[in-house]
Amino acid sequence: MAMTTHSPMIGDNPGQEMHDLVRTLFPICRSITGPGIRETLDILTQHLPSLRRHQIASGEQVFDWTVPPEWHIRSAKLIGPDGEVVVNMDDNNLHVVGYSIPVDRELSLSELQEHLYSLPDQPDAIPYVTSYYNRRWGFCLKHAQRKALKPGTYRAMIDSDLIAGKLDYADLVIPGETEEEIFLSTYVCHPSMANNELSGPAVATWLAKWVNSAPRRYTYRFVFIPETIGSLVYISRHLDHLRSRVKAGFNISCVGDERVYSFMPSRKGDSLSDRVAGHVLSNHAPSHIKYSFLERGSDERQYCAPGVDLPVASIMRSKYGEYPEYHTSLDDLELVTPRGLQGSYDVLRKCLRVIEANGKWQTTVIGEPQLGKRGLYPTVSIPNGARKVRNLMHVLAYCDGTRDLIELAETIGADALEVADLVDQLVTHNLLQRVIR
Amino acid sequence: MAMTTHSPMIGDNPGQEMHDLVRTLFPICRSITGPGIRETLDILTQHLPSLRRHQIASGEQVFDWTVPPEWHIRSAKLIGPDGEVVVNMDDNNLHVVGYSIPVDRELSLSELQEHLYSLPDQPDAIPYVTSYYNRRWGFCLKHAQRKALKPGTYRAMIDSDLIAGKLDYADLVIPGETEEEIFLSTYVCHPSMANNELSGPAVATWLAKWVNSAPRRYTYRFVFIPETIGSLVYISRHLDHLRSRVKAGFNISCVGDERVYSFMPSRKGDSLSDRVAGHVLSNHAPSHIKYSFLERGSDERQYCAPGVDLPVASIMRSKYGEYPEYHTSLDDLELVTPRGLQGSYDVLRKCLRVIEANGKWQTTVIGEPQLGKRGLYPTVSIPNGARKVRNLMHVLAYCDGTRDLIELAETIGADALEVADLVDQLVTHNLLQRVIR
Amino acid sequence: MAMTTHSPMIGDNPGQEMHDLVRTLFPICRSITGPGIRETLDILTQHLPSLRRHQIASGEQVFDWTVPPEWHIRSAKLIGPDGEVVVNMDDNNLHVVGYSIPVDRELSLSELQEHLYSLPDQPDAIPYVTSYYNRRWGFCLKHAQRKALKPGTYRAMIDSDLIAGKLDYADLVIPGETEEEIFLSTYVCHPSMANNELSGPAVATWLAKWVNSAPRRYTYRFVFIPETIGSLVYISRHLDHLRSRVKAGFNISCVGDERVYSFMPSRKGDSLSDRVAGHVLSNHAPSHIKYSFLERGSDERQYCAPGVDLPVASIMRSKYGEYPEYHTSLDDLELVTPRGLQGSYDVLRKCLRVIEANGKWQTTVIGEPQLGKRGLYPTVSIPNGARKVRNLMHVLAYCDGTRDLIELAETIGADALEVADLVDQLVTHNLLQRVIR
Repeated sequence: MAMTTHSPMIGDNPGQEMHDLVRTLFPICRSITGPGIRETLDILTQHLPSLRRHQIASGEQVFDWTVPPEWHIRSAKLIGPDGEVVVNMDDNNLHVVGYSIPVDRELSLSELQEHLYSLPDQPDAIPYVTSYYNRRWGFCLKHAQRKALKPGTYRAMIDSDLIAGKLDYADLVIPGETEEEIFLSTYVCHPSMANNELSGPAVATWLAKWVNSAPRRYTYRFVFIPETIGSLVYISRHLDHLRSRVKAGFNISCVGDERVYSFMPSRKGDSLSDRVAGHVLSNHAPSHIKYSFLERGSDERQYCAPGVDLPVASIMRSKYGEYPEYHTSLDDLELVTPRGLQGSYDVLRKCLRVIEANGKWQTTVIGEPQLGKRGLYPTVSIPNGARKVRNLMHVLAYCDGTRDLIELAETIGADALEVADLVDQLVTHNLLQRVIR
Repeated sequence: MAMTTHSPMIGDNPGQEMHDLVRTLFPICRSITGPGIRETLDILTQHLPSLRRHQIASGEQVFDWTVPPEWHIRSAKLIGPDGEVVVNMDDNNLHVVGYSIPVDRELSLSELQEHLYSLPDQPDAIPYVTSYYNRRWGFCLKHAQRKALKPGTYRAMIDSDLIAGKLDYADLVIPGETEEEIFLSTYVCHPSMANNELSGPAVATWLAKWVNSAPRRYTYRFVFIPETIGSLVYISRHLDHLRSRVKAGFNISCVGDERVYSFMPSRKGDSLSDRVAGHVLSNHAPSHIKYSFLERGSDERQYCAPGVDLPVASIMRSKYGEYPEYHTSLDDLELVTPRGLQGSYDVLRKCLRVIEANGKWQTTVIGEPQLGKRGLYPTVSIPNGARKVRNLMHVLAYCDGTRDLIELAETIGADALEVADLVDQLVTHNLLQRVIR
Repeated sequence: MAMTTHSPMIGDNPGQEMHDLVRTLFPICRSITGPGIRETLDILTQHLPSLRRHQIASGEQVFDWTVPPEWHIRSAKLIGPDGEVVVNMDDNNLHVVGYSIPVDRELSLSELQEHLYSLPDQPDAIPYVTSYYNRRWGFCLKHAQRKALKPGTYRAMIDSDLIAGKLDYADLVIPGETEEEIFLSTYVCHPSMANNELSGPAVATWLAKWVNSAPRRYTYRFVFIPETIGSLVYISRHLDHLRSRVKAGFNISCVGDERVYSFMPSRKGDSLSDRVAGHVLSNHAPSHIKYSFLERGSDERQYCAPGVDLPVASIMRSKYGEYPEYHTSLDDLELVTPRGLQGSYDVLRKCLRVIEANGKWQTTVIGEPQLGKRGLYPTVSIPNGARKVRNLMHVLAYCDGTRDLIELAETIGADALEVADLVDQLVTHNLLQRVIR
């Protein structure tokens, strides 16, 4: 049941392949609704043919929210006093404020200023700005450029529609031996930015391929949604199911750069997801940063809300809001690397493998068994042989039916996957048996 | 229901008014029984007309104790070899050992010595000495004076009576919406000393005025008693009532100087009183000293005894036994100041306000609500606006019906009264509802 | 019921007497079966006439193990190329590998090497080697001697038998007021080594004499067995009894040298044994080393195995495996001293006295009692008098029926035996009563 082999769909270099997917998706002008998200889901479906597409109509009520109109953006240009194109969304789709209403009017530079967004502290970055629920229009540009704008009459031209349409999202359910589910969510609503957020859909896609490549105990649910409104829609349509089935889950976001790993716990902080992530990160990335749920900022806000309470944590590289390129044009295809994506993919796979291997066991004989007669003592001295035998004895000493794999591993100071191998050996020799859950 | 306004009986400067009360009460020669305590309660009744007076007869059994005889002291003088008055209680009522039996005899200086009490390390302080349960007589004086006493025959004259009388005490019950009670106790048995103990009755009196000045959820019980025997009497007469009704309480003692705050927990250490005091002191007096219950010394010894177990803690300034002026004539009207009294009054009011505001709440919508449409997002940038919105979101994230106000405030790292305001706003917008206790 | 007097069988100098016993037992060639262990038990019976002898036949199944054949060793010699006796078990019985099969053959030095055992890092120590479950023969010698062996033909002569015989062990049950038991186990299977392991049987023997010397609340079970196979045999024959009766226990091993104390907790780590040992060592040997159960290595491996779970901890001096003389000829009668044995004996007796005195109490009066009228306040100033009165008050304050003696002592920061004396006084004055367990 261990998922260690790759399916034919996963090549030899998942990091590079994920980066290629990020590169393909990067130019698309996504938002929480509209053609950009549809095109994105179309491309993901090429990788995950079983992806299921869903829609919900603008105006529908979702808990305390209303599904917004569908945004269509065709062009956005700012023409300067001399007729030159000062800002053009064709150059970078961050130039237009997300959900800008249509406009075609002339205004003075000073009137224009209140529709401009730039970052004085990062003069060469175009900021990412949206206004989903207030009717606005605006342009984002580098502060250096903004400061160089000369007085005069400007023409703001945004060709957009806000229509009664649909909000799109997708999911993929990969059935396992049990109906208990592992829940993996990522979002597909950000325009041309790479770490936050094309790294998430890319890693989630490759995780889905990997899960699909071997038998599995749990059922896996992958969710591709627009952030916030999308997770609320998903929860509203599946709340009872998710609450009763989901045993662990991760929100997959900001998983593409090469900086130190970050961890955002679930609200309660002691779920299986929290425990497995804590164990894997402590063993494989001991210098990771552990954030408090007070510093949350992604869909765990909804998944962990009171009354929802899914066991959803986040393993990230540079956390949203904490790295300088966040929500700017600097969050690009250089910040996100094949190696960065591969690292997150590996850590998340380790987490899923620990979850798959998890269980509780008890010894079948009273007192220590005689390992020698079973050949479990090394007959010749091998490197780490003593350590392995010692850990084998520790596993036998602590398998009293009360500890799960993670607690067992942490009690004896070993890696959970290494302990899982020892448990397998002892089960094979009928020295341990799994405690029925 | 928040108690924020003052009744007409509280003036503009409670610190000064409390100090004036201390000054009025200071000269009276109080003990655990007798005219001094009656006169003191008379004066308190001028401030608290609803104060109820109670008595218990000398000789009555109270748990393991017997109510002592009533002590009447009229004069106490020590005449020197040359006929001069060496010590006179009229100068300072600490000069006579409390509960001194009557005496009128001549003795040599060396015979006299075993009836004299002084402090070699504090030669200018008159110590406070009592002998409630052993028949003794004696004089207290400055060690400097004692050393200067010349040999010869002295005449000790103490005009006192120990008669079968009454022990006096008083209480005041201010009813609230519920029968659950907040219990506030102070003692009125110390002669002319200011921090320990006229600061206690003064602050308790002003707290009672303040409680009385506005509607309240809890019923408040203020108790003015002689220490130890008085608290035992009060417990013996109200044990079942107190055990079933009292939700929190404070022993009010040593609350008048300007030094650092002190905290004495209840015996169990985890009552509502402990939690609220810990929270308020951590936020408003972070440098306070937290003592162990092993260092107890006032009526918490009785209120927290096994089988009584009231949730009574103490917030003090300089703790009894820990400041140099303690139980001497140096504990005077200069050590206790209007500012010192005001500070204690403010901290205790904060505690009561937190207790009044306390509760558990749960969200009414699933997922985060949309604050924008309710105007709960600041429309213009205001100082601390971001912090307030963030805390508003934190309150919503953590109100799952399990946390009370104090735990909620400590989880999100904010002050409980500030959080109470946020809760009020969210209740007003129907985003939170109180969980029935 | 306090066990403070010695029986006539305990002399004035238990440390010296235990050392004499170690000296008597030292030369005997013990193993896990055979004449050596029988002779050893015979000698112990001279000290403990009520010792009960038991046997189990070779070949019997014990949980996952089989009782091995009985080993008889008569002589073991290695003759050198020139006919000289190079190694002779008569000089030191560590020279022969334990459970060596008989041999009489000539071999070259190089063929001989694989039957020789020495310690390059400790060239003057003869190592202790056994091969209970694999048929082998061999000699142990100092590495210095081994290096000096000259080439040539050697004759290995081991006169031994491995016969279908018996495994011997013994126990002693000293009944008390209750059927609840304290379990004390030590092992008698090591040949001529002193700390590990003749110190254990010596201290266990003297503890048994001491327990027998006075009335007692608990029943005491002393067990003298060969290590591992012996504890498994004992468990297999008494499992239900031990699981239902044993309230605390210690494995007594490595208790003879003068180095720092060591503590090995039980597997669960929170049993009465763990708590009492932690308390006594913290008070009497604060610099002791606390090991983890991961560093176990003696019969706690069996006693604490899942499904057995006896509350067995170990108080040691230098722990097995952690001192340079361990399992070599250097673990001798100089490493173990009368003072070292006496120290362990004293600490273990303190533990047993705390266990005997343990209980829970509650106050009989409400509020503080008046100690003065009972003479429990010192009438004159005595050294430590104030401390004693303060502790007396603390005991009264915390005896609410929930804390046992150890918790009570640790709450008030005093020694458990000192607190037991205070409790006794208060019980005598009817101020405390024991809570029925």
